[in-house]
Amino acid sequence: MARYRLLTPGPTQVPDEAREGLARAVRHHRSDEFRKLFREIVAGLQYVFQTQHDVVVLCSSGTGAMEAAVANVVPRGGKAIVLESGKFSERWRLIAERFGVEAISYEVPWGETFEPSRVAELLAAHPDAVAVYGTLSESSTGVGHDIEAIGRVVGPSPALLVVDAISGAGAMECRTDAWGIDLLVVGSQKALMGPPGLAFLAVSPAAWRQIESVADRPAYYFDLLAYRQALGAGEAPFTPAISLLTGLAECLRQIRAEGIERRLARSRLLGQATRAAMEALGLRLAARRPADGLTAVFFPEGLDGREFLGRLESRFGVKLAGGQGPWKGKIFRIAHLGLLDELDILAAIAAMELVLFEMGYPVRLGAGVAAASQVIATARGL
Amino acid sequence: MARYRLLTPGPTQVPDEAREGLARAVRHHRSDEFRKLFREIVAGLQYVFQTQHDVVVLCSSGTGAMEAAVANVVPRGGKAIVLESGKFSERWRLIAERFGVEAISYEVPWGETFEPSRVAELLAAHPDAVAVYGTLSESSTGVGHDIEAIGRVVGPSPALLVVDAISGAGAMECRTDAWGIDLLVVGSQKALMGPPGLAFLAVSPAAWRQIESVADRPAYYFDLLAYRQALGAGEAPFTPAISLLTGLAECLRQIRAEGIERRLARSRLLGQATRAAMEALGLRLAARRPADGLTAVFFPEGLDGREFLGRLESRFGVKLAGGQGPWKGKIFRIAHLGLLDELDILAAIAAMELVLFEMGYPVRLGAGVAAASQVIATARGL
Repeated sequence: MARYRLLTPGPTQVPDEAREGLARAVRHHRSDEFRKLFREIVAGLQYVFQTQHDVVVLCSSGTGAMEAAVANVVPRGGKAIVLESGKFSERWRLIAERFGVEAISYEVPWGETFEPSRVAELLAAHPDAVAVYGTLSESSTGVGHDIEAIGRVVGPSPALLVVDAISGAGAMECRTDAWGIDLLVVGSQKALMGPPGLAFLAVSPAAWRQIESVADRPAYYFDLLAYRQALGAGEAPFTPAISLLTGLAECLRQIRAEGIERRLARSRLLGQATRAAMEALGLRLAARRPADGLTAVFFPEGLDGREFLGRLESRFGVKLAGGQGPWKGKIFRIAHLGLLDELDILAAIAAMELVLFEMGYPVRLGAGVAAASQVIATARGL
Repeated sequence: MARYRLLTPGPTQVPDEAREGLARAVRHHRSDEFRKLFREIVAGLQYVFQTQHDVVVLCSSGTGAMEAAVANVVPRGGKAIVLESGKFSERWRLIAERFGVEAISYEVPWGETFEPSRVAELLAAHPDAVAVYGTLSESSTGVGHDIEAIGRVVGPSPALLVVDAISGAGAMECRTDAWGIDLLVVGSQKALMGPPGLAFLAVSPAAWRQIESVADRPAYYFDLLAYRQALGAGEAPFTPAISLLTGLAECLRQIRAEGIERRLARSRLLGQATRAAMEALGLRLAARRPADGLTAVFFPEGLDGREFLGRLESRFGVKLAGGQGPWKGKIFRIAHLGLLDELDILAAIAAMELVLFEMGYPVRLGAGVAAASQVIATARGL
């Protein structure tokens, strides 16, 4: 059996120290000891998200936090602008519709990104829009959207800016406060290196005011005002996922010890190296504006993508992700965030070369690794 | 430092093998390996809940599953009968109201239970009630309600029977199918011995038909139809809490190996022993009809309850739970479910005696342990 190497854009590898935290005997959550841990976690999340805002901790997948960012914010019959560019940004619209919110969709083709000027036009045309729902890293396409630029056009409007940074925060620049993000949604199992099952919401004062104004919120488990009240006491309103939080605290300690800027630089560099490798192998990249935390790549014409991913896993233990929705069977996705480092990525590229070679694709063995190594060497000033 | 001994009615102690499962390296959830684990978990839950119905696995606390059992089931403006007898059954009403459901409340004082004949009267008076929301083990009062008898009166009516068995299932008899329970809500961190963060819903065919009929469900993360669709493929619709599930699978293996009947008998016996001990110490029990998984006890007049619980923890590491809501500062609660066995309970009783003695309460040392031991000896036919 090949040794398992998880390189999907979530879930991702969890550091040993965090796995030890997960295994620790459960302690009761209504205790000073737990409150101390909880406050440390909130402070760690604020550090990673570059925010002074309240950070709410939910026990759910990232989708639960997305729902919270709709159901608490826009009243039934209210209006929101949704920036759609893939499977995950489409989810904003689906959630909005499920909660009776009118979604004004600005849709671009998969792999593309948005024109901030068009967002400005939509805001002018819909001054009653309560919020703009966007995405930092669209992990179905590998696109990293320019949230900073979108923030500049949303800022002067009355609308809130809500950003799905589930797979983005911690992997690419995400200046929550500086960019005017009112609600930031993040998941535990991406760049934060935690196990799946926790989601986070950074909430600005303006967002709190809006939430307070929604009289009839269809939210109980995700009632953000209940979380805010508990947060003041260093607690969660419902029994929190104690083991997951104990593990996450270790992840956040490691991120703080390394420093967020160094981590972001590593993901950025690994992204550049990965893209250079894919191009050297003659593969086509999927994202017009690539995210730092993952790379999406089209399978070459005529290659059986399922077979390619299956062989990577069975021969070398390398687990990559396939495509989703309309890109199922068309792309594969490799993560370069969290624990993953230069050698993990170079090794994965080498495995891809060998499998492509074995499958008869015209590849020059070593070409991808060489291109990626050159990017790394250049970045190191060699 | 005294060794920590967790005896709260959730979270509870997690077996070593499950903690090892929690610490295992994360594997991707879209894989045959994970689907096999997931199917094993669902089968294990069906075994514990004594049901052939679909069992949906949510990543949330038990409250999330309660919300799912309201938001998917009763349309906005619909009606439901709520059986209220404590903090957790009150939550059914609060969730119903939050989702625009008219809650017909049958409320009894804390510590009391319901008359099935009164439930029948309410069903006759409200033939349009979509569901009756009840509770198996009301852990705020230590009452175990007679769901079997309530099931007999709900059965002939058009209403569904929805039961919060978050802390009950696995600790006391819960014959989901035989008793006509249409939606059973259970949490991971009680009698199932798992860490907190997972919740389960057993859904009957009649409940599925009702859910399908609700056109406008204010549920996305908790959209049960999405879970049913994924369940058929051995998956969850959103990234599941992989580590928690890996740990839970170990818990369920242990329960199956021991046999559910033996486990239920153990909780029942430990409950009898605990109650005998409390009465031998002159303490008053809180529940008219006691649950098998926990015992709630009034602090004696004049005793500082906070000090009592604090000394139990600091002197002996024994962590019990206090009261909630109107019973905050009035009762304490001790669990006898999951991993906890005879010696854990006898030791905890001995610790209580010593702390009561130290605080000047007129206790005869050993009296509680003697009474509990006598119950155990009698049960063993000694």
